[in-house]
Amino acid sequence: MFYFVDILGTIAFAISGVLVAMNKRMDIFGIIIIAFVTAIGGGTLRDVITGQTPVNWMLDITYTYVIIGASIFAIVLKNKINYLRTSLFLFDTIGIGLYTVVGVEKGIALGLHPILCIALGTVTACFGGVIRDMLCNEIPVIFRREIYATACLLGGVSYFVLSNFLGEQFTFVIAGIIVITVRLLAVKFNIALPNIYKI
Amino acid sequence: MFYFVDILGTIAFAISGVLVAMNKRMDIFGIIIIAFVTAIGGGTLRDVITGQTPVNWMLDITYTYVIIGASIFAIVLKNKINYLRTSLFLFDTIGIGLYTVVGVEKGIALGLHPILCIALGTVTACFGGVIRDMLCNEIPVIFRREIYATACLLGGVSYFVLSNFLGEQFTFVIAGIIVITVRLLAVKFNIALPNIYKI
Amino acid sequence: MFYFVDILGTIAFAISGVLVAMNKRMDIFGIIIIAFVTAIGGGTLRDVITGQTPVNWMLDITYTYVIIGASIFAIVLKNKINYLRTSLFLFDTIGIGLYTVVGVEKGIALGLHPILCIALGTVTACFGGVIRDMLCNEIPVIFRREIYATACLLGGVSYFVLSNFLGEQFTFVIAGIIVITVRLLAVKFNIALPNIYKI
Repeated sequence: MFYFVDILGTIAFAISGVLVAMNKRMDIFGIIIIAFVTAIGGGTLRDVITGQTPVNWMLDITYTYVIIGASIFAIVLKNKINYLRTSLFLFDTIGIGLYTVVGVEKGIALGLHPILCIALGTVTACFGGVIRDMLCNEIPVIFRREIYATACLLGGVSYFVLSNFLGEQFTFVIAGIIVITVRLLAVKFNIALPNIYKI
Repeated sequence: MFYFVDILGTIAFAISGVLVAMNKRMDIFGIIIIAFVTAIGGGTLRDVITGQTPVNWMLDITYTYVIIGASIFAIVLKNKINYLRTSLFLFDTIGIGLYTVVGVEKGIALGLHPILCIALGTVTACFGGVIRDMLCNEIPVIFRREIYATACLLGGVSYFVLSNFLGEQFTFVIAGIIVITVRLLAVKFNIALPNIYKI
Repeated sequence: MFYFVDILGTIAFAISGVLVAMNKRMDIFGIIIIAFVTAIGGGTLRDVITGQTPVNWMLDITYTYVIIGASIFAIVLKNKINYLRTSLFLFDTIGIGLYTVVGVEKGIALGLHPILCIALGTVTACFGGVIRDMLCNEIPVIFRREIYATACLLGGVSYFVLSNFLGEQFTFVIAGIIVITVRLLAVKFNIALPNIYKI
């Protein structure tokens, strides 16, 4: 179940990379690289700064197969990918929920301060997209008034609050669901962070 | 004293990140991320390429508190931050002086060649700003005719010259002061590197 | 012989960094940093994600000397560097051939899956240029319809095919020659990846 959700998230991140790269008119090779970086960038950065090397996707070849498969799928169906946008959005949202909690737990396993664990969770979920945007010569979208990383932060905080009352498994699931819920509500009701430039 | 200067440097780097991020109209979350990256990016890169993980700011939560506090301070006072520019410039200059020498000493502790130690010092002092500018989709300012990294290089060289004559503590302090002095003089007298494009 | 080719590749990569940096009107310091990053970026990323730290160029100061020397040479001769373009192209092509095979062998030494070894080889050969382009605020050139990384991929695949029939030394040399040949033929006959946007 856990693994299945992980793969769904990887697919969603990979396809989001393909879409951005095709927008920049990259060639097939560039598209697959961007898909790869989007899917594994956040976890790679987390593992590198905490010293968990070789980084996680090197230890299980499945991720590589999934990313290459998803990329080819998205390239072949490029004219029809718009019909999949809702599904992709859902996968991506499930992905950040899962990645956040996985990152938080890696921090706990390393004995880090709770704030750093929450930061690691957010890095895991969000920095694939940040590196994708840097490679595509854009200012990362998550820095521009959208509830995305904020959902991860709230989920990370929830994890530590909930862990006082619940077992690890329940904490894991509910914190992940909080990330997903916050993100879905923010998009549905078009909620953004307050605009500090108008205050 | 050492720790106090370190915190001052962290504050200055964080606020410089806030200013650049606000210039790009980022949201609160983006601003805090850029502040963070500016303050800890150089040390993180140094620790990652030398294998000192988890990286330094993960081992002391104080840095995180200071960066978040300085960011909120700068965001709240955003209309008055111009009055602080001189103080910020001084903090930043003290910061690069300190960071350079800390980086050099980390290289020595790892038994690296003096040139690599100097490079590590310069990376520690300058690459937070480089990563900040990459995330903000700008060509890094330190690559454009200013005596900034050059001050760090000179300080690093001084460290090795001085260490032949002085004890470690004096060498540390004087090399740091050399970085600060070179930077202050360059700004005061508007000195830049020679323009190779006009030769 | 091996070492000699390695140094030639380092020189070619460093000079390609100088040319891009001068195009952006950077100062001397910025030019040397970009030269450095271009020459050692790919190997550094490979070593960091696999946990081989301190990274390779820190263990042998020769690389640093060669990069600084090549940079100064290119800056001084900047008006005549055009006459060297063919030599540089050859050095660069030899460089990616060598770097690809070195990266593949590092992956094998770590016991990684063959696909990941090929990916490591490609990262070693190509990501110096990718980081160079990110620092110069450009979309990396290798993502734009040229047979460059593709040559590395083919060389990596050849390595594993050949290693079933040949000894390590022959495999090394022939896989490297395949990278070089593919790249030379692609440039000579102006071959690019198929343009997926026209299908």
